[in-house]
Amino acid sequence: MKDVKEYAEKNKDRFVSELVELLKIPSISADPAYKKELLKTADAVKKRMEEAGCDLVEICETPGNPIVYGEKIIDKNLPTVLVYGHYDVQPPDPLELWDNPPFEPVIKKTAAHPEGAIFARGACDDKGQMYMHVKALEYMTKTGQLPCNVKFMIEGEEEVGSESLGWFIQRNKEKLANDVILISDTGMIAPDAPSITTGLRGLSYVEVTVTGPNRDLHSGLYGGAVANPINVLAKMIASLTDENNHITIPGFYDKVEELSKEERAKMAEAPFDLDKYKKALDLDDVYGEKGYSTNERNSIRPTLDVNGIWGGYTGEGAKTVIAAKAHAKISMRLVPNQDWKEITELFKKHFESIAPRGVKVEVNPHHGGQAYVTPINTLEYKAANDAYVESFGKTPIPQRSGGSIPIVALFEKELKSKTILMGFGLDSDAIHSPNEHFGVWNFLKGIQTIPLFYKHFTKLTKK
Amino acid sequence: MKDVKEYAEKNKDRFVSELVELLKIPSISADPAYKKELLKTADAVKKRMEEAGCDLVEICETPGNPIVYGEKIIDKNLPTVLVYGHYDVQPPDPLELWDNPPFEPVIKKTAAHPEGAIFARGACDDKGQMYMHVKALEYMTKTGQLPCNVKFMIEGEEEVGSESLGWFIQRNKEKLANDVILISDTGMIAPDAPSITTGLRGLSYVEVTVTGPNRDLHSGLYGGAVANPINVLAKMIASLTDENNHITIPGFYDKVEELSKEERAKMAEAPFDLDKYKKALDLDDVYGEKGYSTNERNSIRPTLDVNGIWGGYTGEGAKTVIAAKAHAKISMRLVPNQDWKEITELFKKHFESIAPRGVKVEVNPHHGGQAYVTPINTLEYKAANDAYVESFGKTPIPQRSGGSIPIVALFEKELKSKTILMGFGLDSDAIHSPNEHFGVWNFLKGIQTIPLFYKHFTKLTKK
Repeated sequence: MKDVKEYAEKNKDRFVSELVELLKIPSISADPAYKKELLKTADAVKKRMEEAGCDLVEICETPGNPIVYGEKIIDKNLPTVLVYGHYDVQPPDPLELWDNPPFEPVIKKTAAHPEGAIFARGACDDKGQMYMHVKALEYMTKTGQLPCNVKFMIEGEEEVGSESLGWFIQRNKEKLANDVILISDTGMIAPDAPSITTGLRGLSYVEVTVTGPNRDLHSGLYGGAVANPINVLAKMIASLTDENNHITIPGFYDKVEELSKEERAKMAEAPFDLDKYKKALDLDDVYGEKGYSTNERNSIRPTLDVNGIWGGYTGEGAKTVIAAKAHAKISMRLVPNQDWKEITELFKKHFESIAPRGVKVEVNPHHGGQAYVTPINTLEYKAANDAYVESFGKTPIPQRSGGSIPIVALFEKELKSKTILMGFGLDSDAIHSPNEHFGVWNFLKGIQTIPLFYKHFTKLTKK
Repeated sequence: MKDVKEYAEKNKDRFVSELVELLKIPSISADPAYKKELLKTADAVKKRMEEAGCDLVEICETPGNPIVYGEKIIDKNLPTVLVYGHYDVQPPDPLELWDNPPFEPVIKKTAAHPEGAIFARGACDDKGQMYMHVKALEYMTKTGQLPCNVKFMIEGEEEVGSESLGWFIQRNKEKLANDVILISDTGMIAPDAPSITTGLRGLSYVEVTVTGPNRDLHSGLYGGAVANPINVLAKMIASLTDENNHITIPGFYDKVEELSKEERAKMAEAPFDLDKYKKALDLDDVYGEKGYSTNERNSIRPTLDVNGIWGGYTGEGAKTVIAAKAHAKISMRLVPNQDWKEITELFKKHFESIAPRGVKVEVNPHHGGQAYVTPINTLEYKAANDAYVESFGKTPIPQRSGGSIPIVALFEKELKSKTILMGFGLDSDAIHSPNEHFGVWNFLKGIQTIPLFYKHFTKLTKK
């Protein structure tokens, strides 16, 4: 596979323009209004998989958005790689903060991406990273170098909790049988510090509503005499963390695994520049749980973040009103051993219990998923390690990520195989934010590294 | 003036339909997009004043929305009543909670209004109550019974802080010279418990913004490691009141006048049914400052209410984001001796001081006004009292209101005359809320009572 670099460079413009076409379709899974666009995206992905050399590609119906399944089976005796990715994207809001419309991709150079980056919603998360696998397959089939079997499972509900994926997997275990699952939906430390993600946080996402009076009230006539749902919601949210930024929900930390001194010391060796981190975000200081470093806070520790809040008058000028209702979307990132369903229950019970008289409280769970940690002394990890060494000329750093891919724990449980998380995005790529982008260099580097994983994995596992 | 009741009854349908026409114009002062509608409303008010018998009506330009000035001077030796009101209205949001479109008035019977009520934004606050004065003048001029001079000053910025009114008064003191100011922009206890408002709270209205990172962040990759502006804003708001619902801003209560036991006992005599109050609002309990009754909390005690809050993702479904910014609109109702500019400064200083490292905080004052208390041992109050006795057959109850008409304190300072607050709305009329309405009975009762004030006031003051 010495020619993979050359192949990627030669076809770079075409690869980028194919990705740009895919990015133009607004496949926002959170908003039912975009259902048609999701179907259109699934069709486009199917077509590209067929072109890349899959023998069979199917749009598989589910209770939600369809899953694109594809395969190229060359020899039943050879190992099988199952590629997972998603074609849905996060909502692009707030639109006014984008420099270009989120579904009209633009290529621009940045400090982190001197060779240019593609700016669009989904560029990195996950259309761009998913498409690296399609193009890697194209290289291997077109040059006759595919060393093993490959299957694709590309879903359309990752950003809203992957509800249909569990349903699909349970009904298609045979079809999805594999020896390793390969996912590119995470990041790497830096272009000169390649890394493999070995841990993901779990997630519990809820929406809460505080209801006070049965209608909006004049804040002069009623102010001070009835519970204001916004003030109450603020007090309730505030009380969920204490002065050390520990979460106060009873039982929340009961199953959290404390890392040993040695493990924490090893984590602290990963390259990290706090000043650069603060400067990149324009912050005078970081903020978080007492007793833990920034890299610990966003990987091995659970969190509680309000992702959205609204209530009362939010237009121009002033309105002197006590709103009848106040709302918040709250998510908790969880760590291994915390069960997301149990944590959701603990949250609900606690949140309802702290509501003062004078308001009613509703807690509606949105979705969730379990945390995941993968060992690094496995054959799967060794294959990934060897691929990086060959591609980057450096040993990759195993890294725990703060993000969640709720389905990874399920894969292990249902499909009995290990997952390798090969991410090529950078932290600064603004996924889930305005001006999301993905470096052209990173895109090509992914396409070049993936076939090497196939090669090493096949070599290590061939019977 | 024995025929006033008859005149009002005979012309009831026309009076109501004229008011309905006025209510159709969406004169929302908080939103600059409605500027034209405000001018249209001012023109309509001018036309109605001319029809009612004013000798002179002018649309007076100001730095903001125009003021409609009108007068009928019958004899320089007779006393002059200055009527103040406003033609602007609150924004109608949230629109989805209205049973009819807010600017398409509908007349419906309700439990509180068996003779029907007009449902529209501004029906009670203040187009309906202001228009009572225009129709009262019509009665007095058409029947040759106007006993004194009258002036009108109807503004278009009351709901956004009356900024141009001070400017206008300072430049027109001579023109506005009067012996008493008459305002109907408050309420009454009940149809069978008439009341005159003797106190208004002051107001300080601010908007705050908490800024964290320079862009929205992925809550997995950054969650727990940077200050989340929504979580921080919730904590800051929560800390503004303590466990007894006292406001914690240093110096906030320094000038608050504590009422004597006797004064509080007298207040407690006003008819009030707590169970009915809770039931009308669908509340299991009231809520407020420890040590004070509901009627004290919403009249003689200052408050701090969040009128609006927003930040992050507020659309359908879930988005795992840490917002770059969170915002809130916060208003404080003030009591006599609290200076609104001083309180605004205290708020700003305190709110900025409690911001943790990792965020920036901005406090922008919107507007404000001083509280007002009027004595009841004056000739002006006696005239009002006598008018109510004649109209209702009952002595009106003097009542402190929780609302604010920021300009009342300024009137006394600049024009050296007392203000009488004759309100005819009910607490349940939902002013500032969806489905605002004004009882047809109340509208007519106002038209019938106002001329009697003119009569008694002239009798008591005639030189």
